[in-house]
Order: sequence, then structure tokens, then C-alpha cells
Amino acid sequence: MSNRLVVVGSGAAGMSAASAARRTNSDLEIVVLESGNHAAYGLCGLPYYVSDVIAESDDLFAYRPEFFREKRRIDLRFGVEATRLDPDRKVLAVSQDGVGYEIGYDSLVLATGGSPIVPGALAAQSDRIFTVRNLDDAVRLHRLLDERNVRRALIVGGGYIGLEMAEALAERGVAVTIAEALPMVLPNFDETIGERVHAELVRNGVAVRLGCRVESAVDDGSCLQVSMGDERIEVDLMVAAVGVRAGSALGSDAGAVCGPGGALVVDEHMRTSLHSVFAAGDCIAPYHRILRRPAFIPLGPAANKTGRVAGVNAAGGEARFAGVLGTAVVKVFDLAVARTGLTLVEASAEGIDAIATQAVGKSRAKYYPGSESVTVRLIHRPDGRLLGAQMVGVGDGVAKRIDVAAIALQAGFDVSALLDSDLSYAPPFAPVYEPILLAAQAAGADQTSTTAGVAGTDRHGVKQ
Amino acid sequence: MSNRLVVVGSGAAGMSAASAARRTNSDLEIVVLESGNHAAYGLCGLPYYVSDVIAESDDLFAYRPEFFREKRRIDLRFGVEATRLDPDRKVLAVSQDGVGYEIGYDSLVLATGGSPIVPGALAAQSDRIFTVRNLDDAVRLHRLLDERNVRRALIVGGGYIGLEMAEALAERGVAVTIAEALPMVLPNFDETIGERVHAELVRNGVAVRLGCRVESAVDDGSCLQVSMGDERIEVDLMVAAVGVRAGSALGSDAGAVCGPGGALVVDEHMRTSLHSVFAAGDCIAPYHRILRRPAFIPLGPAANKTGRVAGVNAAGGEARFAGVLGTAVVKVFDLAVARTGLTLVEASAEGIDAIATQAVGKSRAKYYPGSESVTVRLIHRPDGRLLGAQMVGVGDGVAKRIDVAAIALQAGFDVSALLDSDLSYAPPFAPVYEPILLAAQAAGADQTSTTAGVAGTDRHGVKQ
Repeated sequence: MSNRLVVVGSGAAGMSAASAARRTNSDLEIVVLESGNHAAYGLCGLPYYVSDVIAESDDLFAYRPEFFREKRRIDLRFGVEATRLDPDRKVLAVSQDGVGYEIGYDSLVLATGGSPIVPGALAAQSDRIFTVRNLDDAVRLHRLLDERNVRRALIVGGGYIGLEMAEALAERGVAVTIAEALPMVLPNFDETIGERVHAELVRNGVAVRLGCRVESAVDDGSCLQVSMGDERIEVDLMVAAVGVRAGSALGSDAGAVCGPGGALVVDEHMRTSLHSVFAAGDCIAPYHRILRRPAFIPLGPAANKTGRVAGVNAAGGEARFAGVLGTAVVKVFDLAVARTGLTLVEASAEGIDAIATQAVGKSRAKYYPGSESVTVRLIHRPDGRLLGAQMVGVGDGVAKRIDVAAIALQAGFDVSALLDSDLSYAPPFAPVYEPILLAAQAAGADQTSTTAGVAGTDRHGVKQ
Repeated sequence: MSNRLVVVGSGAAGMSAASAARRTNSDLEIVVLESGNHAAYGLCGLPYYVSDVIAESDDLFAYRPEFFREKRRIDLRFGVEATRLDPDRKVLAVSQDGVGYEIGYDSLVLATGGSPIVPGALAAQSDRIFTVRNLDDAVRLHRLLDERNVRRALIVGGGYIGLEMAEALAERGVAVTIAEALPMVLPNFDETIGERVHAELVRNGVAVRLGCRVESAVDDGSCLQVSMGDERIEVDLMVAAVGVRAGSALGSDAGAVCGPGGALVVDEHMRTSLHSVFAAGDCIAPYHRILRRPAFIPLGPAANKTGRVAGVNAAGGEARFAGVLGTAVVKVFDLAVARTGLTLVEASAEGIDAIATQAVGKSRAKYYPGSESVTVRLIHRPDGRLLGAQMVGVGDGVAKRIDVAAIALQAGFDVSALLDSDLSYAPPFAPVYEPILLAAQAAGADQTSTTAGVAGTDRHGVKQ
């Protein structure tokens, strides 16, 4: 009899695990249990489906369920909720159509994802209140926009998803207000970057309320009456986008060790503390390569990669996950905003002696049409060693420029090694002095300068 | 009395040297001698001025001569040709308006650039034959296009400049033929990349003749009669773009050691073999970080950087140049084509045991509008160590994607370290699995696979 691998969850991590397991072991029995009825779709594409940039929700699927079932011989079961894990007996209790039963495993991958945090005030019963965490949410939101007269929307939370949803709804002609409890939008960036994004939101007609908590939202039958701070506003629609909580309960209830964000702690093989139980995706806190400890930063690429690593190992192969840098990019109207590694605030919070050096360069030769400003902010130790980078600018180049910084960070570069890099140049694509090189140069000048406040350099001390 | 630094040449390298010298030493007397009458303009922008993408040739100037003279106190002299260098006496013989005289120096920077190679057959006297190496050439070419009926053009040479000029002339409505002596366009790339570029040229109506040498070009008063291979064609205009020769004569005639391409050999401080004589830009063969020896690859960013290093050191400061990787990108109609490090052909020619692994990915999430194919070709040793990369695709992302590979190459990554990288993802800017990661994954599969011909992998042995 063959071994049985059970995967809980059919999102990016779960289906990556199942697929990698099949590639590793063609004889393995592979069962995927999914409480919903979709598999392997692009969660990050939901705002673009809402905005009609993507015509059909079907386009979001990487593969159809039949592909997994037939081509990869994965027993993908929808409508099955895993309710309890017994790691000693190697058994999962599940519930399907109200009927409970048990399923045994030889190895298990928990890919239970994350669930959107919904503040108490927003948990009111109303079909005008949404989170955007799964396809069914997005389809319901899309239908509301199509079928009802939605003129005003409130987005609660100014992080990645909040800003993407603000843009999506504005694209649909809705007047959007963002309420962010912290004193800046994109609060996981440093302030100078957040300010630039704030201006872009305002330029596109989005109202932004900072330091603003939503106290209540009441559906009066025709719209939502929202109280926040001193303000009361009426909206037709509200989206809660205040963050994600790791869906680690199945593992933690069984005794698995959890870490930051309540997420499951795993080793580089994606093993949890429970025997034969692996985990991947948004329910784990993988190793952070700069912090050198687990961190909860739920993002798509790590979900795919940790899924693959968990699947290979759960199927008897050998694969390791090197860790994350928290590299991310988000589109906010015409801007791309990106980060990797630590912000100055984060470095300071860790007690790391850090400096931020910021420079503004051009996306192309300055004389070439479409040349736009790109702001690069490097976070580095006083000796120049890179700790992180943030960028903001117009156009496709920003996302790949942050990747340049991500590789430099992974390699342990200091700013002088970055300045020594040989980057591509052609007037349509880049200036001779890339913005990232300007920042590295300014950071180097910081190091050697005897006076603070070198031109073009925004130097900050550590907050302590 | 202050020391005197003389810089020969006012291009990117020369003006970078003079400016860096001024920043290093505010008392230094700095003289720049230029045989022409322009300084510090964007040589690489000339094709875009010819195509009218850039409206005014003035836009190509980074700074005006007055800026250098007044703000930076640089004695910038036009119309002065340096004819002979006497390193023992520390004296340059120069010629100005037909009058010869001598000028002494304490330190000297040779930034004499490169000169276009003009095959004998094209050296015929005709105002319809051009090289595109300086602003005056480009202005003359622009005027011909404006004032005469130019319907047909021949570009001799299918390298970077040849392809940029083909696009520029096609943009001006001219029917373009490219004649390349070697059997592929972009002959400094591997064949699979050249083929994609060839198809793009043909798709845009450019006729391409490969393995084709121009034997003669005769101006009959109304057009050029060109013989090449078995073919005779009539054109209104011809551009010779067969490469650049290092302008090293001033140094080499004085005994400076030359290397590849006849270019001046320099150390990491940009010192030539002559006492107190530095060199920078297209007249030198800087250190190549993969070849671990000097290489002649004249490109803009290295000209600027070596100029800065030469200037700092010539002024008594301390700066080093870490070397080049030959990173470059070129726009060919809708395509961006890029490289860094070695091609498979180059690696093989060096006797390096190398493998090429090629993968095709998407520039954005596949469901996001404007998602285009990006081909990534990684050159690596059998143990996975990176040797180079080539990329071709539509859009701005390619130029920055090659930079990701350039940093990985600089860091000495193998393909598994590249696969371990944490790159940014958002549907509008990148797919979850970046094309470069797909290539790294395929290359890793190559390493561990027991069978050749893994799906998606184009594996090549070394040519020996």
C-alpha cells in the first residue's frame, strides 16, 4: 500500500505542495481537503477582477480542478473542513455536508492560509460589508457594484489590500474614503514613502482619514451609517482590509509551536513541531533573512515556495526554504511602491543601529519621453551594510528595481558593493546613473562625510 | 602654485573625471582639451534624436559648457587636439587652429573615447555615408532626413547601434535594410536571442541580410549604389555601425601598455603604465569581473564610472573601479534585449565548461492586461555557478530584470541562490514565478536531472 499525504487547503501553498509532492513521488496517494470550492486561484488578482481590469473571474485560475485531479492524480476534495488534528494517531477529523469522519495520513501539510481580521465594529450583519480574501467575497462585491447603485465606499485600512481596493473601486466610478487607524497610509513603510502615496491617493480623488478608527457601521436598509472619530459618513459599501491573521488553529490546537502573529513556526524543511506535520503559506512564520528569526509576512511568492518545499519534503524528498526578505510591490494608481528587508522604523524597533539614505533619480534618460522620478530609500548600518530598501515611482521599472535591492540584500552587500554594480543602461529604459546607484552613492558619502546633511541625503538617527 | 590636471576629451568619461577631480580637490587647476566643440552629451541618445523621439539635440546635454567653466571652475577648451604625449617631461603637444604648442601637466587623464570603425569600402567620399558616433554626425544625418527625400537606407552592422539606427530610420518612414557580416543580428548574444530579435526586425519591415559584406558604395549623385554579396541595391543613405575602435593612440604612441581591442590597460585606480597618466572611458580595457582580465566593452555606465575614479585619483584622492560585467540593454522596436556576464559562446571560447538554460515566463500575472513573454537564458557552470544571463521581451521590465541577474553575478550566486531569492510580486508588475526564477529552477533541474532535455530547458554542451 502506498503512503498517503494529506494537504489541508487548496490555495497557492496547498496546491504547490500537492504538485511538488507528485513530482517527488509518483506513487504517493495525495489528498487535498478544501472547505471552499475553488483551488489555486490568484488571490492577489481579486482587486483587478473587482475593477474589471480582468474580465472574468475564471481568468484568475492557474489550473482547473480537473487538471489537478487528472493530470497530477491529486484527490482534490471541496467542501471538506478539517476540524481537528490528532498528530499521535496521525488522523484528521473532518466535516463534510454536516457529517463528521476521520482521515488518516502518513504525512500532513497544513496550508490553511490566513483569514481577514474584522474589527468588532465591522462584524455587523450587512451585505454591504466585505473583506477581500477569497474569490466568493470578490464575486459578491463585483455583483453589488454591477447591480446596485454604489456611489460611495469606505475602505478600512490603508495597507496593500486597502490601497488596491481603493484604486479598484475608484476605477468603477465609486467615491472612495480610506480610514487608517495609524497616522499614515502604507504604515509598514517609512513615512517619506507613505507621504508620496498619500498624495497620489488624494490626486486621484480618494479621501484619506488618518489616525481614524471606525466605531460602528449600521445598515439602515439603504446604506451604511458609519461612525469614525468625530465624523459620521454614509456609504453604500465598506471593505475591511485591516490585515490577515494566520489560520494556524488546526495546528496550534494540536500543540504545534506558534510564533509571531500566532503563525506556525517551521524549520527550513517546513516541518512544524509536530511529527510528520509540515506547514506552508500564510499560516506560517518563515525565517526572515535579515531579522534572523521567524516573521509573519503573508505574501504570495513565499506561499508558493514554502508550499513547494513542504510538498517535496512531505513526499520524502529534500528541499529547503532559505527564508524571506519581505519583498513586496503594490500598485497605487500610477505609482508602484515597493520594499525589501527592513524599514528604518523596523530596524530601530529591533535595536539595530540604522541609517536611511534617500535619493531621487529618473526611470529613463532624462531627455527620453516618459522619464519619471524614482525615489530610492536605502536602509543601512553605519558601516554601509544594507538592511533594506524602499522605492516609489511611476511605471514598471520600480518592481524590478526593488528586486535588484533584494538580491543585493540577500548577498549581504554594503552600499559600496551596490555602487560597484554594473547595471544596464539605454536611454529608453534607464539613466546612466540608476536611481539605486544615486542612493548608494549618497549613502557612501554619508559614511565618509564629516558633516551631516550631505546634499540629496535624508539622514535619520535611530529612534530609541 | 597649484597642481595642474589635464584631461583629454570632454565626453562622459572626461567630464566625469574633471568633475570628480574638482570635488576631490578644490585648489587644483583643471584643464579639459577637446578637439570638437561639445562636452558631456548623451552619446547613446543620438538614435533617439535622429528618430525625433527627442525633439532638440540640446536636450542631450547633461550640462552646458558654462556650467563646467563657472560652477566647477574647469578650464574647458574646445577645438584643441592633443597630438603627442611626452610622459617623461609631463607635457602634451597640442594643435589649435593650426597652431601647435605644448601644455604641461602634473597628472593627466586620457579620455579619448573610441572612434567608429569604417570598413574600406565605406570610406568613399559621400555625404550620404554616416557613422553615428558624435553629435555633429547625428545633426548632419537629421538634416539630410529633413531636407532630402530619403526613402531607402542601408545599415551596415547589426549590433546595438545598428539596430537602434534601424529603428530610428524606420520611425522616420525610411525603408531599412541591415547588412551584417556575421550569420546573426546582435552577434554578441547567443543565437536563440538573436533569432528573436531578427523576427522583430522583420515584423517591423526591416530587411535583414546575414553573412553579407558590403564591397563598395558609390554615390552616383542621386543615390548610393551598393554592392554586397550577390546583391546590388540603391539607397539614399548608409550608416556604418560595425563597431568602435579604442582611441588609445595618444597613450600607446607614448608607450602605454595596451590590451584587448588595442585599448589602454589600467589598474583599479585607472592608472595606465605611464607615470601620472590615468585613462577612462571607451579608450580603456577595464577589468572584467567574470573573465578576470581586461576586456574592451565600450559602454556608457563604465565610461562615467571609470571617469569618476580616474578623476578622484588624478586629483590626489582614493577611488577604485571594481570592474565590468558587460551589462547592457538595447531597445529594438517593441523588444528590450539585454545581457550581463558571458554568453555561452564567450564562455566556451574561454574554455569554461558552461551550460545554457533558457526559460520563458511572463512579465506580469498571466491574467493581467499587457502580460508579455520574457525569455531568460542563464549561462552557468555545471555546478550551477552563474556566468551570465541574456533576456529578451517586451516592455520596461527586461532592463531591470537583467540588473537582477547582474547583481547575482556580482555576488557569485549559483542558480540555487538565485532560486532562493525573494523577489517582488504584484499582478500588474510581475508573476508569482518570475521568469528569472523559472530559468533558475530549470537550471537546478538540469543539475540534478539524470536525463538530458528536461522540459522547458534548452541545454547546450560546450563547443570545443
